[in-house]
Formats: sequence, C-alpha cells, structure tokens
Amino acid sequence: MQKIPVVVAGPSGYTALELFRLALRHPGIEVVALFSRKEDAPIGDIHPALRGRVDLRTTILRPEAIPKGAKAAFLCLPHGTAMEAAPMFLNAGLRVIDLSSDYRLKDAAVYEKAYKRPHTDKGNLPRAVYGLPELDAAGAIRKADLLANPGCYPTASVLALAPLFAHDLADPSDVVIDAKSGVSGAGREPTAPTHFPECNESLAPYKVAGAHQHLPEIEQILSLQAKRPASVIFTPHLVPMDRGILASCYARLTKSATRESLEALYRDFYKGAKFVRILAGDALPSTKAVAHTNFCDIAVRVQHGRALVFSAIDNLAKGASGQAVQNFNLMFGLDEGAGLE
Amino acid sequence: MQKIPVVVAGPSGYTALELFRLALRHPGIEVVALFSRKEDAPIGDIHPALRGRVDLRTTILRPEAIPKGAKAAFLCLPHGTAMEAAPMFLNAGLRVIDLSSDYRLKDAAVYEKAYKRPHTDKGNLPRAVYGLPELDAAGAIRKADLLANPGCYPTASVLALAPLFAHDLADPSDVVIDAKSGVSGAGREPTAPTHFPECNESLAPYKVAGAHQHLPEIEQILSLQAKRPASVIFTPHLVPMDRGILASCYARLTKSATRESLEALYRDFYKGAKFVRILAGDALPSTKAVAHTNFCDIAVRVQHGRALVFSAIDNLAKGASGQAVQNFNLMFGLDEGAGLE
Amino acid sequence: MQKIPVVVAGPSGYTALELFRLALRHPGIEVVALFSRKEDAPIGDIHPALRGRVDLRTTILRPEAIPKGAKAAFLCLPHGTAMEAAPMFLNAGLRVIDLSSDYRLKDAAVYEKAYKRPHTDKGNLPRAVYGLPELDAAGAIRKADLLANPGCYPTASVLALAPLFAHDLADPSDVVIDAKSGVSGAGREPTAPTHFPECNESLAPYKVAGAHQHLPEIEQILSLQAKRPASVIFTPHLVPMDRGILASCYARLTKSATRESLEALYRDFYKGAKFVRILAGDALPSTKAVAHTNFCDIAVRVQHGRALVFSAIDNLAKGASGQAVQNFNLMFGLDEGAGLE
Amino acid sequence: MQKIPVVVAGPSGYTALELFRLALRHPGIEVVALFSRKEDAPIGDIHPALRGRVDLRTTILRPEAIPKGAKAAFLCLPHGTAMEAAPMFLNAGLRVIDLSSDYRLKDAAVYEKAYKRPHTDKGNLPRAVYGLPELDAAGAIRKADLLANPGCYPTASVLALAPLFAHDLADPSDVVIDAKSGVSGAGREPTAPTHFPECNESLAPYKVAGAHQHLPEIEQILSLQAKRPASVIFTPHLVPMDRGILASCYARLTKSATRESLEALYRDFYKGAKFVRILAGDALPSTKAVAHTNFCDIAVRVQHGRALVFSAIDNLAKGASGQAVQNFNLMFGLDEGAGLE
Repeated sequence: MQKIPVVVAGPSGYTALELFRLALRHPGIEVVALFSRKEDAPIGDIHPALRGRVDLRTTILRPEAIPKGAKAAFLCLPHGTAMEAAPMFLNAGLRVIDLSSDYRLKDAAVYEKAYKRPHTDKGNLPRAVYGLPELDAAGAIRKADLLANPGCYPTASVLALAPLFAHDLADPSDVVIDAKSGVSGAGREPTAPTHFPECNESLAPYKVAGAHQHLPEIEQILSLQAKRPASVIFTPHLVPMDRGILASCYARLTKSATRESLEALYRDFYKGAKFVRILAGDALPSTKAVAHTNFCDIAVRVQHGRALVFSAIDNLAKGASGQAVQNFNLMFGLDEGAGLE
Repeated sequence: MQKIPVVVAGPSGYTALELFRLALRHPGIEVVALFSRKEDAPIGDIHPALRGRVDLRTTILRPEAIPKGAKAAFLCLPHGTAMEAAPMFLNAGLRVIDLSSDYRLKDAAVYEKAYKRPHTDKGNLPRAVYGLPELDAAGAIRKADLLANPGCYPTASVLALAPLFAHDLADPSDVVIDAKSGVSGAGREPTAPTHFPECNESLAPYKVAGAHQHLPEIEQILSLQAKRPASVIFTPHLVPMDRGILASCYARLTKSATRESLEALYRDFYKGAKFVRILAGDALPSTKAVAHTNFCDIAVRVQHGRALVFSAIDNLAKGASGQAVQNFNLMFGLDEGAGLE
Repeated sequence: MQKIPVVVAGPSGYTALELFRLALRHPGIEVVALFSRKEDAPIGDIHPALRGRVDLRTTILRPEAIPKGAKAAFLCLPHGTAMEAAPMFLNAGLRVIDLSSDYRLKDAAVYEKAYKRPHTDKGNLPRAVYGLPELDAAGAIRKADLLANPGCYPTASVLALAPLFAHDLADPSDVVIDAKSGVSGAGREPTAPTHFPECNESLAPYKVAGAHQHLPEIEQILSLQAKRPASVIFTPHLVPMDRGILASCYARLTKSATRESLEALYRDFYKGAKFVRILAGDALPSTKAVAHTNFCDIAVRVQHGRALVFSAIDNLAKGASGQAVQNFNLMFGLDEGAGLE
Repeated sequence: MQKIPVVVAGPSGYTALELFRLALRHPGIEVVALFSRKEDAPIGDIHPALRGRVDLRTTILRPEAIPKGAKAAFLCLPHGTAMEAAPMFLNAGLRVIDLSSDYRLKDAAVYEKAYKRPHTDKGNLPRAVYGLPELDAAGAIRKADLLANPGCYPTASVLALAPLFAHDLADPSDVVIDAKSGVSGAGREPTAPTHFPECNESLAPYKVAGAHQHLPEIEQILSLQAKRPASVIFTPHLVPMDRGILASCYARLTKSATRESLEALYRDFYKGAKFVRILAGDALPSTKAVAHTNFCDIAVRVQHGRALVFSAIDNLAKGASGQAVQNFNLMFGLDEGAGLE
C-alpha cells in the first residue's frame, strides 16, 4: 500500500503520542512533519517511548512549512489553538482531522459558553463533520475535509445511548450518565488534581451538575438521535488509572423492553460496526478489556423501568486517536480498520 | 481510662486488621483473645503490619475459651459464620458487634434470598440493632447487646440519601446509586477479579441490576426513612485502589429544592453527627480525604429536577471497623469518637 | 506476505494474551489452533480483550489434533508442562518456540535444582537454542527447531551486563542485580502475594539471596559471555504495576573506564540490534518508555569503580512474547522486527 | 497529660499533613499556630482531609506572631527556607524540629554543594543535633534545641547499615544502596515526573551516580558509625505508590558472618529500639507492612561475601513526621512512642 503523507500539529500531548504509535503500525500513514511552538525538537525527547522509532523534529507552523504532497493534518492541539491552525491547513489543500473540541459543536454560542472563549473560526464551522463513524449513516465522514473528532466522554456516552433514542425507547430528558475516566484524559500538563499523590488511591467526581464542557456535545448528538432536545445529568469522575472511560448510563424507558429485546436492538443497530462489541451473558465491560484497542464494549440491562447501559472505551484510542485514524481511513477510502487491527 | 476487655473472632481479614489498628490507639479497648479456625497462630504472622505491636495468638472458638471478664465480641467473620458464633458469645454474657451481614436484614427470607443460604439464628434476629449511629434517633444502639454493623455500600448510600427521604423530598422508587469501591471491600481471599493484573488499571461494574447482596439492606433502611418502600437501582463498581467508597446518588425530587436549601437541610439533619461533613462551596468528596478516618463526606447538587448527592467513606473505617468502634463507644457509654480522633 | 500457520499451546495466561495481540498485527503469522486442558472454550471467554478479534476455540492436545501445515508452535505453558508438549510438536514437524524455562538451562541438574522437579525431556535439551537474538552472533536462532525463549529477568539483566563481560571489563564474581518487576510477571493464577490489596501500594523483595529460579539462567549466559563462571547477587522485587522490568546492575570494573567509554562500547556491541536503545545525555530507562514495545533501554554510568547499568523492558514483550515473535521472525527468514513495529 | 503547645511552619505539604494527623492523636501535643506565606487560610482548605478536625488558620511568620507559651516549632518548610525561619523561633525561646535538610550536614560546604545554594545560618549549624534516635547513644536528642530531623532515604539506609559499620564488619567504601520511594517523597508541588500518567505504571531510577542530595547525609552518618569515610553508591528509584521507602543494601563483609550471626548482631544493636523490627524466618520487609506506622522493618541475608540488608519505612512517618514526633517526645521527656502507638 502506498503511504499517505500526513502532518501532526501539537505533538507533545498524549493524543499525539497515541497517534504516533498507531501511525507506526498503520500500512497507509506516513507522518512527514510535526508542527509545534518549539522549533527543531526531536520527537524522541518529547516522548521517550518514541526514541529511535520516529525520526522527526518539530517545526513552527507557518504556511510555507507545510510539506507539498501532504494530504491530511491531524490536529492534537489544545482547544482554542486548533481553530487557529485548521484554516492554514485547509487553505494548503490538506484535509483536517481535529482532535480538539473546536469544531464539534454546531452552534458557536454553545461552544463559547462551554469553553469560555470566543470561537474564532465560525466560517469553517458549517463544513465540519462530526466524526462518530457508527452514527454516520449518510457517509458524510468519507467526504469531509474538516473532521471534528468526538470527545472521549461523548464517544462512550453516545454509543451507549444512541440506539435507545434513535428508536424512541427512552426519555431524552431523564438520563443519568455517571462516567469515570483515567487520568490521561486530563492531558499532559501537570496540575494539582493530577499530581500522583493527590489522585492515586482516590476517586472523586468533578465538574458535576452541568459544569463539564463535554455535556453540550453529548446533548447535541443525543438530541439528533432522539429528534428532540436531550437534557442529561452527566457526572465525570477521576479514576486512578492511566487510561479508559467507563460510562454507566441510566435512561428511563418509555416503552416496554427487556434485556433481551434491547440486546437484539443494539446488535442490529451496530451491525457492521466493527469496533462495537455488544456483550452477551454475564459479561460486563471493563476498561482493561478495551485498553490499547479501538473497541467500545457495551452491555445492557433493565431494572425498575430503566435501561442500564454500560460502555467502556480507551479514552486515547476510540476516545481520541484511534477514532481519528478510523476517520482518516474512511476519508481516504481505506479499510475502516486499517492500522487498528 | 480503664480498658474494656474485648475479643475478636475472625482475625485474618482486612476488617480485623483495621480493628486492631483502631484498638491499638483506643484508650478504652483491650483485645484479650482472638478466635479463629486455626489454633495458636501469632497475629503478627497473619498480619505483618502487626508484628511486634499485638502480642496475641489465635484460639479455636468454644465456650470455655472465652475469657472471663470479656465484655464485648467483635465478629469479623464471613457472612454465614457470624451467626454461628454470635449465640455463643451472647450466652457467655458478651455484647456482640457483628461486622458481617448476618443480622442486618430484619426479614430472614430477604436475607436468605440475597445471601443464598439459610439463616441459622432467626431467634436472635429481632434483638439485633442496626448500628448506623447517625440514624439512631431513639438511642437503640446504646442498649444493644447484638449490634449489626452496617455494610460499606449501605453506609455510604444511606447517609447520602436519608435526609431526602426522611423529609419526603424525593421519590424512593426513582433512585440511582452508582457506587464505586476499592478492592479491599472484596475481602482478603485471592480471586480472579481481584488478582492485581486483572483489576489494576481497570474499572468495571459488577453485580448490577439488583444482583448485589447489599441492595436489600439499602432498601430496608431507606424504606424506614421514607416510610414507604424504596426501590433502588444500585450499581457497584470495582476501582483500582485499596480503600474507599464513593456513592454518586441521583434521586428525583418531589418538591422544589435548591442546592442551598438541601445543604441547609443536610446540615440540620446531621447536626451533632461528628463523623459527617457536609461540604461547602465547590468542594466535592474524594475517597482520599476520608481515607483512614471515620468520616463520611457529603456534597449535594441539584440538576434537572434531581438531587445529586455524593458521599465518600473509607470502606474499612466508617464502612466497617471504624463504625464498629463508634458503635462500641456508644454501647459502653464512652465518647462516641473515642479512638477515632 | 503469505501468513505462516502457527499453533499456541497454553492460551490462558498473560504471555499467550500478549502473543495473540502481537499475532493480530503481524503480517506473517496466522494462529490456526489453540491447545489447552479444556476442550472447546472460545478464546474470547478466556481473554475478554480478544472478544470478536480472535475466532478460535481450544482443543485438547494430542498428536492428531495438530493441524497439517502448521509450521510452528508457541508454548505458553507453565514450567514442567512445556517439556511434555514440545516433543509432540517436534515429532509432528513443527518448530517449537518455548516461552517456559524448560529448555533454557543446558545442564539438566541445574534445572532440577532450580525448579525443584525432574527434567523429563533431557533428550531434546542439547538441540535447544537459547533465543536472545542480540547475543546470537553465530546465527543459531535462524536454524533452531527448538527455541528456548529467555526469561524476563534474564533478558533485562543479561542485555545490561553482557557487553562488560564480553569485553572482560568487569569481574563476573562481583555483580549485584537489583531487579524490579510488575505483577504480570507472576502469572495469571491468583495468589496471596498478588492479591490487589496485598501488593498494591507496596514494594518488597522476594526470593532473595540465590532463591530465585532465574538466577542460574542469568549466570549461565553471563558465564558464556565472560568465558568464566559468573556468580551473581540477584534480588527481585515486586512493584505495584502491571508490566515492566527494571534491572539496576552494579558491576565492579577491572579496567579503567568512563561513562563515555562504556557508552561507546555499548553502542558498538549493540550496533544493528534494532531493539536495544542506548540512552544518551541525562536520560535514564523507565518501564513506561518501553511498555507495549519490544525495546530494551539501557543507560550506563560509572561511580566508585563500578559500572552502573540500568535496563528496562516490558516483561511481556521483550521479556516474553515480543522476543518470541522476534525469534520466530529470525527462524522463518522474516524481517527481525516484523509485527513488532 | 497536659498538652505542650507547638507551632507548625510550612503547613501545606505532605509532611505537615502527616504531622497534623499524628498530632491529632498525640496525648501531649497541641498545635496552636500555623505559619505560612499566606495569611488566614483555613487548614481544611489546604488539606481536605483535615476539614472539621483542625480549626486553625495560617499566619504570616514574624516574631510577634509566635504565641507566648509555645514550646516547640516543627518546620515543614522547603530546604533553604527552614534556615531562614529557625533563628526566629530559637530567639523566641522555642525548641526547633526541622524536617528539612538545612541543619543535617555538619559541613556547610558539603550542604552548599549538595543543595546548590548558600547556607545562610552557619552560626546555628554546630548546635544542631541529628535526630536519629536509634543511633543517639549519648542522648543528645533529649537536650537539643535545634533538631535536624533525618531525611527519608538516609533513615532507611542508615538503619539498615549502621550495625555492620559500627561493628567494623563491612567495608564502608564498597556499599551499594538501591533505594525505592513512593511519590509523596517528591513533595506536593506538581511536576512533570510526578504527573500521574507519567509515573503511574512506571518505574525508573533518578539522580543516580552521586547526584542525589541525600547521599552526603548518608555518607556523613555511615562514616561516623564506621569511624572512617564511607563512600556509597546510592540509586534512588521512583515507584508508583503513595508512600514507602525500601532500601536494598549490599555491603561487602570484611569478616566472616552468617545470616544468623548478623541477625543476632542486629537484634542486639537495636535492643530497646521500639520502632525497629528485625524480621525472622522467611519474612522480608514490605512498605505496606510499615505504612502509616513509625516502624523500620529490617531483614538480613548473606550471599557471595556480602551482607544483603533490606529495610522498609513509611517515608512520611519514620522517614519524616513520625520521626519528628519521636524526637519531640524525647526532647520533652515524654514516652518515646507517645502518639505513635
């Protein structure tokens, strides 16, 4: 397979590291340039795991530094910075896969409230395609030139709940999502809450009761599935582990359903989705069973008139860089699972 | 203070280890005998942490081995075994504090269904007092001679929700308790799910949708508070840490309430409860903030017509041995917090 | 590339799981049969991570169950069992890669003392080739039909020390290897020391002062390099993490050397070894930088007349299944790094 | 017991938190003031674990803010800051227990080289007493008014090796100390190496080959015991756990010795030392067995002419605040173990 030349902007975080790992084993990706605020830093110094494996140095982003022939740009930049970089790549003719949240919310006003900053690239917002392949019935991802890669919590939550709302089985205004994330989800910047002796051997909720910036993204997608506004109680928790998200979802059923009927529905809904596994029997998702994979494991139960749906993903894989590669594969006509096993 | 002689049955598990630690610094407790299935094992071999600190050896339990003068027996035995031992201690005139679940459920049939074994001491069930001091308005604990020490999940869950139901503010048939526990809650017996490389770096629900044996205990106490039957969705999760329980509770409000009104209500409800801390401002409970203490930290929020209540305890302290000592203090007329700081 | 059909015996442990993961992305390996003591168990039930990815069921091992056309057998069996199975595969014409210790020690008497069991396949011992590719100057691995895959501690320790002894720079009778391993090195069988609440948040040495079964293997290989008997102080420690080995080695220098001269020597010694990285500057090995890779990272320092050599590997990769694949690649004429990035 | 009023300077770090926990259960300590760079911060905001348990607010340190009647000052300040504060307390008539390294090294030039800063209180250096009670045969601690509380690594290392050198059994110029520490040893300031996703699931050496600032302290004390200069190879490692230090020490024996003879020697050396436990039989130290205690567990073996000595402490207890309380007890004529169980 001829490799497609791509560039990576923002190479120093965990999503970039994961992307490099995936790119190394992907038959169709060749990373040809790294854009950073720092000039000429070897990637092996930034990520010791990449020493001797990736022989690239960073360059400061400016239009003339974009290699001719590069076809795609993966943006692993922080929120707010991605929307400054995206237009430059689009203008240079590259297709952009943005792992930040800058193009995920269709309504700039919602973005500005959630992220507490102005949206500086409203012009490109309409052309952005939300890249959750399992919900892309229309195939918009394949044609996207600006792809908004979903957030980690939204991916786990939406994959868990979409079948219920798409089939009008549950009340989109009575949903609890109790989600738990490993610490890499907080990024690579040292902070007090992510200092080892603070978060190790501890479990705590944070940004509860509507305060988390991923909530509008979850509600946007669930509303689309439900064809009416979803209002969600979303509680994220920080768990002392490197990776993984588990979403425990509780949705009030509006039609009668059993575990068996829901499992059948889910299997049908995700027929052909190679990265969703509906668990059978007594099995329940665990973050370990999906670690370092692009899978989303889902189990369904029914109790007291509610559907209980549990989903697990690796926040850096299906929740970020794995999904980005999956989207890349679709955008460039490769096998959806190329490089993802 | 003159020390009260006590005995411990079942010294090899984690609740016993925690009890020894607490007893060592308690001004009024002296452990005078250990009862086990093994004869003559030094406690320092069973718990290396106790080497050189507790100079006791195990004895096989039989009536004549109970030291004269012993006033209380702490039962750290597995479920099913405690109810075999309790009568022997009661007959010998000791007051019994049972850390197992054998005397927690008032209805033996409910016990037998939840624990999948016959109840073999129904005769003593009526005299057993459920030992959650913060809900013991009548002071029954002080007079108990058979005290059923609450389970870890029930302690965290019930302390979080009792004020709502006691004041008829929430619907006891529409409650979700999403609870998370450290691994010591599973006991000291090695099993596949608690093997380090299986549960480390992983998070998973277990015994969901009504399967956990603590659910009837939670429902029993919440029903008493609500004065009508509570039916609860309870999801326990296993978290890769040694100790701690966090309960994230979601209850539908039946009367209008704000965060502020609920906080005021909780402060009033737990006025005088020295081990409950109602958090103010932005603070949210974490298991680390209560680790190795007898505290239960609680925070309340309101969203979409639901009360969100988060509570954290140390499962081995307030969730087991710390609460047992608190109950002991009450039963023997000591300061409620003696030995618990 | 046409895939080479292989079989796996002993599919339920961690080395087997890692082998499956590597095989899934290897361009030249196709697993065609699994041999176990259990008949007809789907591999996805044994390893939830493999659900939906590997569609194979176990078979009980007997000669007629070995698929015609299979070229190689990976033995992920426990010590003692591997030497019962190996002859059957050899007789059927397969080349055997044994991940156990059964064929590593050239002297059966040393094996029997270290492993406290009789060696039951002495006949095949002479033909076994010790598979540490970086030390296989003669290319014996390429021709092996019975390959003894090195142990995890020996791999880390020997790669750290071999250059010193091969160049007669250090005294092989004055060496301290202080090694630390993640818990997966202890296997998948639940035991008291690997029960989460016992080993989490703890660090301890074990099998010290000559008691560890890997010591004779380390001494055998170092003696070959030094061309005289090596006697080693080897202290393994259990570290609360899933994977990784770090060996901190202290060898008395017999000739004058500086950090710079040793680094140059190491770079030269491992020239062409694609999985050994000699770290420069201030960098020191960490198990995280090699996790999920086949690399061995090495750093050298000199202090008080000793060489200090630090090496890190992933015990399940370069310390087990990754190295097994590397050996497979060599044995079957593939690129040494195929499937290993 | 009448409580002795003490003050704490530097209340925001982990040693201060541990000190508060110990003070809470100590029968003879009452903390009456907290000195910090911040004015009027409640301690419960700084350490959530102390909410509702310690009702104190910080004050900026100046002479007139020191409460009359205060008898002792615990300095939990960073290195460099402690020596600015100590004179003020000494002048006010308080006895000072300094948990920093500012007064541990007798030779200011050695301090200045190790800590890369000038020593600004050389005048008080001679009166400082190094507070390792188990080695204080002369009872200097009891009379000290400026006590230098030992470092965590030195405490573990020196207690392991002192008996050998005091009895001239080992060569002080041929010693390897391979030490491992939990992450709280690095302090409470968030940094890249202590960011959870960086150090969790990882093990690595740091500051090797003479670079660690604790090495001169170790050599100073061992030299005193050996009555000649000790030169030590000291390798610290960072371990993914909250607390605990394990020192694995390798010393070349200069006289013939057996495990049994050394154990007898150690027992004799530490006769009466209530916080040193010499392990017997197969037992080996683990950090878990000493966690949250003031114990130092030690085991001795002999191999290839070397004594192998393993010691474990809790870095925040015997390695910092526990030892500080032990010193306080001695200084004020209390039972050495008061408040430490």
